Amino acid sequence: MPKAKSVRLSDVAAVAGVSLATASKALNGNPRISAATRERVRAAADRLDFRPNALARSFASGRSGTIGVLTHRAKNTFARPVAMGAILQLGAQNQAALVYDGDVQETRAMADSIRELQARRIDGLLVIGDGHEHASPSLTHNFDVPVTYIFTASSDPGDVMYLPDNREAGRMATQHLIDTGNTRIAHLGGPETSIAAQRRRAGMRDALAGAGLQPAGPVVNSDWTRVRGAVAMAELLASGAEFDAVFCANDHIALGALETCAAAGLRIPDDIALIGVDNWEGTVVDQDGSRQLTSVDLELMELGRLGAASLTTGEHTAGEHFSTPTLAVGPSSRS
Amino acid sequence: MPKAKSVRLSDVAAVAGVSLATASKALNGNPRISAATRERVRAAADRLDFRPNALARSFASGRSGTIGVLTHRAKNTFARPVAMGAILQLGAQNQAALVYDGDVQETRAMADSIRELQARRIDGLLVIGDGHEHASPSLTHNFDVPVTYIFTASSDPGDVMYLPDNREAGRMATQHLIDTGNTRIAHLGGPETSIAAQRRRAGMRDALAGAGLQPAGPVVNSDWTRVRGAVAMAELLASGAEFDAVFCANDHIALGALETCAAAGLRIPDDIALIGVDNWEGTVVDQDGSRQLTSVDLELMELGRLGAASLTTGEHTAGEHFSTPTLAVGPSSRS
Repeated sequence: MPKAKSVRLSDVAAVAGVSLATASKALNGNPRISAATRERVRAAADRLDFRPNALARSFASGRSGTIGVLTHRAKNTFARPVAMGAILQLGAQNQAALVYDGDVQETRAMADSIRELQARRIDGLLVIGDGHEHASPSLTHNFDVPVTYIFTASSDPGDVMYLPDNREAGRMATQHLIDTGNTRIAHLGGPETSIAAQRRRAGMRDALAGAGLQPAGPVVNSDWTRVRGAVAMAELLASGAEFDAVFCANDHIALGALETCAAAGLRIPDDIALIGVDNWEGTVVDQDGSRQLTSVDLELMELGRLGAASLTTGEHTAGEHFSTPTLAVGPSSRS
Repeated sequence: MPKAKSVRLSDVAAVAGVSLATASKALNGNPRISAATRERVRAAADRLDFRPNALARSFASGRSGTIGVLTHRAKNTFARPVAMGAILQLGAQNQAALVYDGDVQETRAMADSIRELQARRIDGLLVIGDGHEHASPSLTHNFDVPVTYIFTASSDPGDVMYLPDNREAGRMATQHLIDTGNTRIAHLGGPETSIAAQRRRAGMRDALAGAGLQPAGPVVNSDWTRVRGAVAMAELLASGAEFDAVFCANDHIALGALETCAAAGLRIPDDIALIGVDNWEGTVVDQDGSRQLTSVDLELMELGRLGAASLTTGEHTAGEHFSTPTLAVGPSSRS
């Protein structure tokens, strides 16, 4: 493949006998330039084999081909696939991503980034959080280009937000347990103050209500860890409640529950079926793709993709939009 | 914060009484423009509170402020942190990332991406692979800007490459076992044909030789999975070899080994110390940061960061450069 020719727009302008600005406008089809001049410039460009220079194109069109991306702790395990999904989607649309990582909760610390993004004449902005436990301060008023919030709520309900569907994840997990023959379903919940945990639990109630079932046993809340999940499962067993399945609020809790059940001589899924949320690769999936646990995937890369697409080809309307979770069936639930 | 003013370069040019091109060159300090004109344009820009427009700046300077990034299967678990580290570093240097994901082994499939990157007048290119099992075809000759290969070797040894240091990871893991009092160290290796596995094993030999030790027992090769790791550990135990520690080629093998040891009633780390490689978050680290396993971290985000920095502020010299692994001490090795 040959190198990009080094023919410049100024060469084309000289050959066509017009100014640089006129040549630029002509090649961009600016209607203020006469058809004859546009034709003359186009012919000169063809003769010189001038490759449309993206810089000149940007300059003339006022569009930078660049989307600003403000990430909140992008190194975070959950934020990373979201940001990656967004950036790959931007690339698929020939948009570059100018990514500033910082604390999007700190409006003051964001000021420099905002100024720089304004100066770069970005065509749109993505604000990417690390979950929706905290809403991000709305930055939309700083920009006259579309802004989308991904994996975080905005403080302004009129903003465009893309969020994981935790309620649907809870419903889907519980429905899978119902569909595979379980009728007495208990819950090991996440932290009581967590919005994600609350929504997953609400989804569980939706599914149970739809099937005319009641939750089995007390809800035992845990933090999100394996160690505490194991303890929570022991408490649930000690409660004397009768249950044939447990919806665990995340995979780590489910893996802890699995250990407690194994230690108690309970067979999974025959005695107790288990399901988690996150479908955390490497944890519930071995390196060859085989899996330990049934789980619900929140589709975080897809969430990033949808949010990025909203700026150009997708839906950019006010309020909350969701990515659709998917079920990943493993050996911890009945088939 | 106010919106970016809509004052345009053409306004500045009109006020200063110069052409658009002259105004652009003057603001960019082009020495072909007289000092007096530069001063006049600068004064007009100040009076109008003209924000330096990145598009005009790019156009005048011929620099796009954009780095091309060709990723090979960026969704891959290992490639993702590398790409993320690179993109965050680019952002920290005010460089946008135009990311095209595809198969970098397929030169033909890359042709469109290469042409688009040339047209965008990128200031540099990163080619990001998914490990160094296969070298990527060199694309350097297609570009007249610096090109760096990250997480993949290039077919041209004269290219600039940034790779994880698998040999150092093997040495570091083994040295840790030696430093914590183990003298009879066995190895559960990865696939024999894997370059990463070979280098990790070579690093183990380095550390043993440095301490005047021999490997304990046969090397049992495995694939990279937990299930096969458990079987390999059983084979090692059945071999009758005497050992007090095992360097496992990755975390999944180590976790499988852990299960086999637990089932055999062996105490970890008192009877057998175990160490893995990857420090796979979520797998060896619980969600609250507590850990199951001692491991060596290949520092993949740092690898991406170093590779991206090589285009601008870092070292851009031919050959292989490495990120430095770090030791993550957990409960599976002695203290």
